Amino acid sequence: MSTTTVGPETSSRGADFVQSLERGLAVIRAFDSENPSLTLSEVARRTGLTRAAARRFLHTLVELGYVRSDGRLFSLRPLVLQLGYAYLSGQTLPDVALPHLRDFVAQVHQSTSVSVLDGDDVVYIARAAAKRIMAVQITIGTRFPAHQTSMGRVLLAYADPAWLADYLARIELTPTTPLTITSVDRLAQVLAQVRRDGYALVDQELELGLRSLAVPIHDPSGAVVAAVNTSMQATHGDADERAAELLPILRATADAIEADLRLNG
Amino acid sequence: MSTTTVGPETSSRGADFVQSLERGLAVIRAFDSENPSLTLSEVARRTGLTRAAARRFLHTLVELGYVRSDGRLFSLRPLVLQLGYAYLSGQTLPDVALPHLRDFVAQVHQSTSVSVLDGDDVVYIARAAAKRIMAVQITIGTRFPAHQTSMGRVLLAYADPAWLADYLARIELTPTTPLTITSVDRLAQVLAQVRRDGYALVDQELELGLRSLAVPIHDPSGAVVAAVNTSMQATHGDADERAAELLPILRATADAIEADLRLNG
Repeated sequence: MSTTTVGPETSSRGADFVQSLERGLAVIRAFDSENPSLTLSEVARRTGLTRAAARRFLHTLVELGYVRSDGRLFSLRPLVLQLGYAYLSGQTLPDVALPHLRDFVAQVHQSTSVSVLDGDDVVYIARAAAKRIMAVQITIGTRFPAHQTSMGRVLLAYADPAWLADYLARIELTPTTPLTITSVDRLAQVLAQVRRDGYALVDQELELGLRSLAVPIHDPSGAVVAAVNTSMQATHGDADERAAELLPILRATADAIEADLRLNG
Repeated sequence: MSTTTVGPETSSRGADFVQSLERGLAVIRAFDSENPSLTLSEVARRTGLTRAAARRFLHTLVELGYVRSDGRLFSLRPLVLQLGYAYLSGQTLPDVALPHLRDFVAQVHQSTSVSVLDGDDVVYIARAAAKRIMAVQITIGTRFPAHQTSMGRVLLAYADPAWLADYLARIELTPTTPLTITSVDRLAQVLAQVRRDGYALVDQELELGLRSLAVPIHDPSGAVVAAVNTSMQATHGDADERAAELLPILRATADAIEADLRLNG
């Protein structure tokens, strides 16, 4: 996951913008799976802050219990979980979805996830992983550009038409594999097909070797609020055949989640 | 979960303390499962900030993509997950533990969790929940006072002796049920027993009707770094008998996690 560097010293965000908060949050996000422990210099470099500023933010986070320090190395403490889980605990969908995602994994031995659209990205909010040696490194909170993923295409296909028109007018379709769709017209056609089919199948457009199939999850009012997917290795047989096998099972998972959402509504 | 109010206007935390960061984080934590949407006034009240200050922090969080607003109500956006998951993604233990927690649930149909000690609290970092109508409302990041919980007692029992002596000298054993141990001498005896037995059984000291059994998880160096527990309703038979049944299965789960930690070490 990429690190967020903070804005320039003189903020153009207006007088009401609290730059210290932006910078402090960037310091928290400087830590990730490849960098669970960082020196002061590394935090400064990864955030674009001066060493003096990075030191003040780290000191504050240590005082508040979000960061620990052994004098040289800094790392996050579990208190930061309360920030992320403030979001999750307010959501019904992850709790409702999880048992059904586990049932799916038990049945087909493939990982499955639920995502929502946040800006132009899909964000994973629930996941059940199959036990494998080679597993896709995805956790709750992982984000990908919506246009390259099966869940993203489902969520784009059913998005508000005015919002979608604006999205298509401004989005840059940066490819990450030779198979990524880079034409907006082609993407619009694919989204129209997703609306007709009721599912999206994406073949190696995010990463070579990775295929993913997704269907929508509707809330009790009938609006598409999330998508559920399953991913498979592209080496395992023909993409369309395997998708045809998995589609009814994935649809049944979405149906079960929707039924529970109505009960919990 | 309780809301954190911020410190007084004139901070006693020293010149290097960035109060704006403390306040901004308190605004994020003002949202929880009971309050997923808040008005400006509610945020001000729950954080102890003035309305003007709360407005500036909310405005900043909206600008940064952490909070959405419909004009009147504010709620968190999934971007806050990246704050909490910055911690989790740097940890090996939750990923390693989860498949074994799921095996435990499949075998005994009871929920199981892994916690670490953070300050004087246990914090849940991995969990597999049994499907039940009445479920304990616990998520990743949930915290409880260590002294009242089975995982906390395991972690206290194996804590650094000097740290534990200091803990016992200063801790206030606030009871939440009539069964909560409130004597420090009694707690010290119980911890000595935990060290002898290699497990902790806590009967309705956190909440009436809830029993919990925990065993330690050692890292490859042999240090106790976490605890794994299972919880059961106090109405289901005799506590000691049920614990005797579950203990070998829970120990096998801890063993399997430790073996994988050695492989991943």
